[in-house]
Amino acid sequence: MSLFFRPLFEKESATYTYLLADLQTKEAVIIDPVDTTKQRDIALLEELGLDLNYIIETHIHADHITSSCPLKQKFTHAKIVIGAANATSCADILIKDGNTLNFGTHTITAIATPGHTIGCMSFVCGNKVFTGDALLIRSCGRCDFQGGSAETLFTSIKRLFTLPDTTYVYPAHDYNGRICSSIWEEKVFNTMIGGGVKKTEFVHRVNAMKLSLPAKIHVAVPANQVCGAKIIGE
Amino acid sequence: MSLFFRPLFEKESATYTYLLADLQTKEAVIIDPVDTTKQRDIALLEELGLDLNYIIETHIHADHITSSCPLKQKFTHAKIVIGAANATSCADILIKDGNTLNFGTHTITAIATPGHTIGCMSFVCGNKVFTGDALLIRSCGRCDFQGGSAETLFTSIKRLFTLPDTTYVYPAHDYNGRICSSIWEEKVFNTMIGGGVKKTEFVHRVNAMKLSLPAKIHVAVPANQVCGAKIIGE
Repeated sequence: MSLFFRPLFEKESATYTYLLADLQTKEAVIIDPVDTTKQRDIALLEELGLDLNYIIETHIHADHITSSCPLKQKFTHAKIVIGAANATSCADILIKDGNTLNFGTHTITAIATPGHTIGCMSFVCGNKVFTGDALLIRSCGRCDFQGGSAETLFTSIKRLFTLPDTTYVYPAHDYNGRICSSIWEEKVFNTMIGGGVKKTEFVHRVNAMKLSLPAKIHVAVPANQVCGAKIIGE
Repeated sequence: MSLFFRPLFEKESATYTYLLADLQTKEAVIIDPVDTTKQRDIALLEELGLDLNYIIETHIHADHITSSCPLKQKFTHAKIVIGAANATSCADILIKDGNTLNFGTHTITAIATPGHTIGCMSFVCGNKVFTGDALLIRSCGRCDFQGGSAETLFTSIKRLFTLPDTTYVYPAHDYNGRICSSIWEEKVFNTMIGGGVKKTEFVHRVNAMKLSLPAKIHVAVPANQVCGAKIIGE
């Protein structure tokens, strides 16, 4: 059966959550769910009679808190998936480059794309790639915390650029209301790496980003290291 | 050539703008562009080397100001398209039910879907329908100004429901970060009309909506009646 696919937006942190499902087998996957929109996502899953196989985090987010743990409490078969290089105590599957996840007749393949953080993963499903904060629309993730490295990110994005040009790019964020792009567009038009920018220039551009720390970083990172579980005493 | 399609979001009024194009002939169409995001939209069009054939308004919006007129100043071949039942002084094409618009190898067909306002139109392109404020995700437009009528909207939505179940629904707004739906989902799950709700009940539900007037209505409606043209003295 054709893939059921819904991008979903959380406006405070401009985060995209993605729901993928096989409506015949009712197996579903959610990528980068956010705590403040969990009721919307649960309602959609319940309405469609879906069960979650996997809750995937592209990385340990610094700008919002995941709803992985609350979703798993609701959908008890779900396995929380995160890149093996992350420091987490809560994931069921520590995924590595090349590993696959199945739901219904569909397969997701993990690609290690470190650089924004040390543990960033991208995920390919059919003609779509979910790039987290590695490759953004016309931009890329910052590299100044959580083991980030612009040199490493350059290699990761170049690897994403080996996907077919027609592959749709679905990032974890866009701050300008753009919802998707394509590998072709980013190869040509990305302002950080498009048009054949060399590694030294890319590293210079990334390191020249003057960004303040995400407002929630000191809350979000520890919370996301336990998959958004309520910490005792809170 | 396959349709190039990009949904775009304007967060203040939670409005979706849609860009459709044939990348081979470079002909493009934009639906419901917003004044505050016109630089983003112009940048995207210019980057892709596109020329606008048509700037389509699904209706005279009450919550934001269109960028139709500024876009036409930039893309001088573009024709502004709006439903014939609207009071406007600026449109190039007053479109009627069943009329078609072509760009490259693609065709858009207009469907009159009055009810939210007297002049609301929906537009079908391939497996997508752009429903404006007639049919929203799990909801529908209000009917208490600009010639609105819940009875009329019922008939309009029922007509949209005759499209194939697999047709993607792209509305003018969603306030919960949902980006698209399908005719099947709305037939089954729409909270106003889904699941076989009868006309009297639908009218009751619409008329029971307790909504304040859109903050910008007294600015936006007159501005949109002239397609967002700068009014002398402003």
